[in-house]
Amino acid sequence: MTAPLRHDGALSGSTDAELAARERELERRYRVACGSNLDLDLTRGKPSADQLALSDALDGILDGDYTASDGTDTRNYGGLRGIPEARTLGAEIMGLRPDQVIAAGNSSLTLMYLTVDTALRYGLNGAAWDGALSRGARGASPSQERPILALCPVPGYDRHFTLTEALGIGMTPIGMTDDGPDMDRVEALVESDPSVKCLWCVPKYSNPTGCIYSPDTVRRIARLPQRASEGFLVLWDNAYAVHDFDFPPPPLENVLECAAEAGTEDGVVLFGSTSKISFAGAGVGFVAGSPNTLDRLEARMSVMTVGHDKVNQLRHARFLGGRVREQMRAHAARVRPKFEAIERILSESLGGLGVAVWTRPRGGYFVTVNTLPHLASEVVSLAGAAGVTLTPAGATHPGGHDPEDHIIRLAPTFAADDEVEAATEILALCIELASVRKLLAKSRAK
Amino acid sequence: MTAPLRHDGALSGSTDAELAARERELERRYRVACGSNLDLDLTRGKPSADQLALSDALDGILDGDYTASDGTDTRNYGGLRGIPEARTLGAEIMGLRPDQVIAAGNSSLTLMYLTVDTALRYGLNGAAWDGALSRGARGASPSQERPILALCPVPGYDRHFTLTEALGIGMTPIGMTDDGPDMDRVEALVESDPSVKCLWCVPKYSNPTGCIYSPDTVRRIARLPQRASEGFLVLWDNAYAVHDFDFPPPPLENVLECAAEAGTEDGVVLFGSTSKISFAGAGVGFVAGSPNTLDRLEARMSVMTVGHDKVNQLRHARFLGGRVREQMRAHAARVRPKFEAIERILSESLGGLGVAVWTRPRGGYFVTVNTLPHLASEVVSLAGAAGVTLTPAGATHPGGHDPEDHIIRLAPTFAADDEVEAATEILALCIELASVRKLLAKSRAK
Repeated sequence: MTAPLRHDGALSGSTDAELAARERELERRYRVACGSNLDLDLTRGKPSADQLALSDALDGILDGDYTASDGTDTRNYGGLRGIPEARTLGAEIMGLRPDQVIAAGNSSLTLMYLTVDTALRYGLNGAAWDGALSRGARGASPSQERPILALCPVPGYDRHFTLTEALGIGMTPIGMTDDGPDMDRVEALVESDPSVKCLWCVPKYSNPTGCIYSPDTVRRIARLPQRASEGFLVLWDNAYAVHDFDFPPPPLENVLECAAEAGTEDGVVLFGSTSKISFAGAGVGFVAGSPNTLDRLEARMSVMTVGHDKVNQLRHARFLGGRVREQMRAHAARVRPKFEAIERILSESLGGLGVAVWTRPRGGYFVTVNTLPHLASEVVSLAGAAGVTLTPAGATHPGGHDPEDHIIRLAPTFAADDEVEAATEILALCIELASVRKLLAKSRAK
Repeated sequence: MTAPLRHDGALSGSTDAELAARERELERRYRVACGSNLDLDLTRGKPSADQLALSDALDGILDGDYTASDGTDTRNYGGLRGIPEARTLGAEIMGLRPDQVIAAGNSSLTLMYLTVDTALRYGLNGAAWDGALSRGARGASPSQERPILALCPVPGYDRHFTLTEALGIGMTPIGMTDDGPDMDRVEALVESDPSVKCLWCVPKYSNPTGCIYSPDTVRRIARLPQRASEGFLVLWDNAYAVHDFDFPPPPLENVLECAAEAGTEDGVVLFGSTSKISFAGAGVGFVAGSPNTLDRLEARMSVMTVGHDKVNQLRHARFLGGRVREQMRAHAARVRPKFEAIERILSESLGGLGVAVWTRPRGGYFVTVNTLPHLASEVVSLAGAAGVTLTPAGATHPGGHDPEDHIIRLAPTFAADDEVEAATEILALCIELASVRKLLAKSRAK
């Protein structure tokens, strides 16, 4: 958020008569919009067909040569850590060393699930959170009766919340700033409550605010496992590590290096993938961390698979190895204009009105709009009736509940440029209409 | 097993002097073998490079067309059940209808893990086996103190055992016959012990005996969920569904049809994959079952992934759709001679001696050899010293423990034809040597 929402903008200084006139004008425009049979969608956090086409050369790139650099026949079974060149690719994307990375299957979310489930039931950074399966038995344990809590920066990524909830882990929302999570609160909770076992992070172009965690925030996060109860994990979902709009891109502090300095390496697990670099559904996922972390995750993997898809790993290494930035420039050329359109239209329509603030990310997949309190659902509903589908208000919060009901997540990548523009126009109209109505109602209630 | 092992063969009728002379001859030959610097391996249940090359056209087969038959852009996120043509391919392989099949990622073992873990913690065919997470809470439950047991036909597949053990589930070994598991014992256990919650099955070319479950056995298995306690599952790992040596291939009774007749459809979950049809590490895995089963598994998948690799599904559908049998004939041409070499050499070397029996599978990946009681480890060790690596005796039993120590699993596919022949010669020599020594020791102890 570039600035806190101020309620002293132009609209709140208007007279009731001015507001009523504005309401009539907005309603007229809104009725026109509703009659236009629009069918627009800003909910889909996935690449456009244009972006996907950047990687169409993947299929066929092997040209009959299925052998990895270490001689591995990628067509056959085995190799849970991935082939060397795929680990190198993961390291290039995540800013790590190849030996810190496991290259796996097509989903980093699966690796996050594996990590949390392992920590919960078997132990990853020390003993199991629930103390059961780590003892080699399925049976109950007294410690299972203790709650286990995850710290969840909000607004955040709904799939993190769904995953956490499915494992029976409670969630404590943490406010986001432009520098990342509110670290004073995170540190206080971690120190005072031994039930707190992990912190979810999307450190670069955070989903959905688009902020980049500041160096100080990253260093404080890296030290958390020192202050926390046994088994605490930083879950570092670096999904947008290279998804920049500007080149050279802004840096992100290396959390694993910070952790190594702090002696907390076993407490930080990193995730990445090529999903929004090559194909969203058919890329390569990565998990990274300390030697202990990789050993334990590999041991878990060995129970459930004979190995990941090494052929696809080889395809990706041959296609992207050494040219990730070039690929991301090409993505940026397609994605950046959509973000700029949102910024331009929201500024032109709502600038100075004091009814909304929004983020101006320089990468990633999302823009966050803050409305006046308790108006987000109303805006989403108005937009829906006018043919513009928005992510349900609250989706960015654990349990789908935003207590302030003021956050709207925009995902512009999948739609065409003109669709993004048209949808944003409607959004701005709906925000202003809902805000004017609210101000009028408030004034009349006096 | 074509016949039980008889101890009245030629060797046991020999005099001590004859046995001692034979021992000297065998030891001479064994010393020669040990001096030959052999390096042979019959442990690897994976395809040879020759077999893998049959599918080299997979990479590049899409020719830039990434669109599935229903219009899905396979490059993007989504679609947990798989694209239609991949589900059709799974159905073709497994002898089912496409709507009964989910096409997933590269590993059917992962789908087995998901299935057992879901049944254990969330419930699949009724309530969760351990009664915990199904109640929406992570906490302990009184029922967790009850043991949970899996019935495991032996000899069997070690990865089934490892998976089961990792989930804290106990294992009860069940003897195998030529018709499949000893069903009298299975039925008795299922009816008498409510802790028994599942039965592992490899119904065709069973790993490692190579038998095909008889129609009567399949029907009895399909009815088990009626007789068992709530939540019982038949885990039907049809890994070798089309891996035949003879065409037309021998039939396998359709367990899901039998279950539908018996009203037990929710209690049977089927698995298959293209792993040994196309690439062992980069194929497509399938899980199949009732509508309820697919709904529940899809719900679990949705927590841990945004979708499986649909691009690879499309490759496989385009490459294999409608020509699975043709592909398997080509595999058979490469695999069958290795099995025939084992049969020929064991028959010539050990036939009539009464020291071993072995299976003569007409498909699949393994041959099982039964030695005299308590000799398998000794044979494996002798062969190892002569440069022939065999799967550790006991690996085919839960916990790696074969109480009779008499079963050796041979996996001939990966080795070259002449290596299979050389290794089998050594194996036969080691079996006879160990047996002669044992008979001599027994006789001298009298």
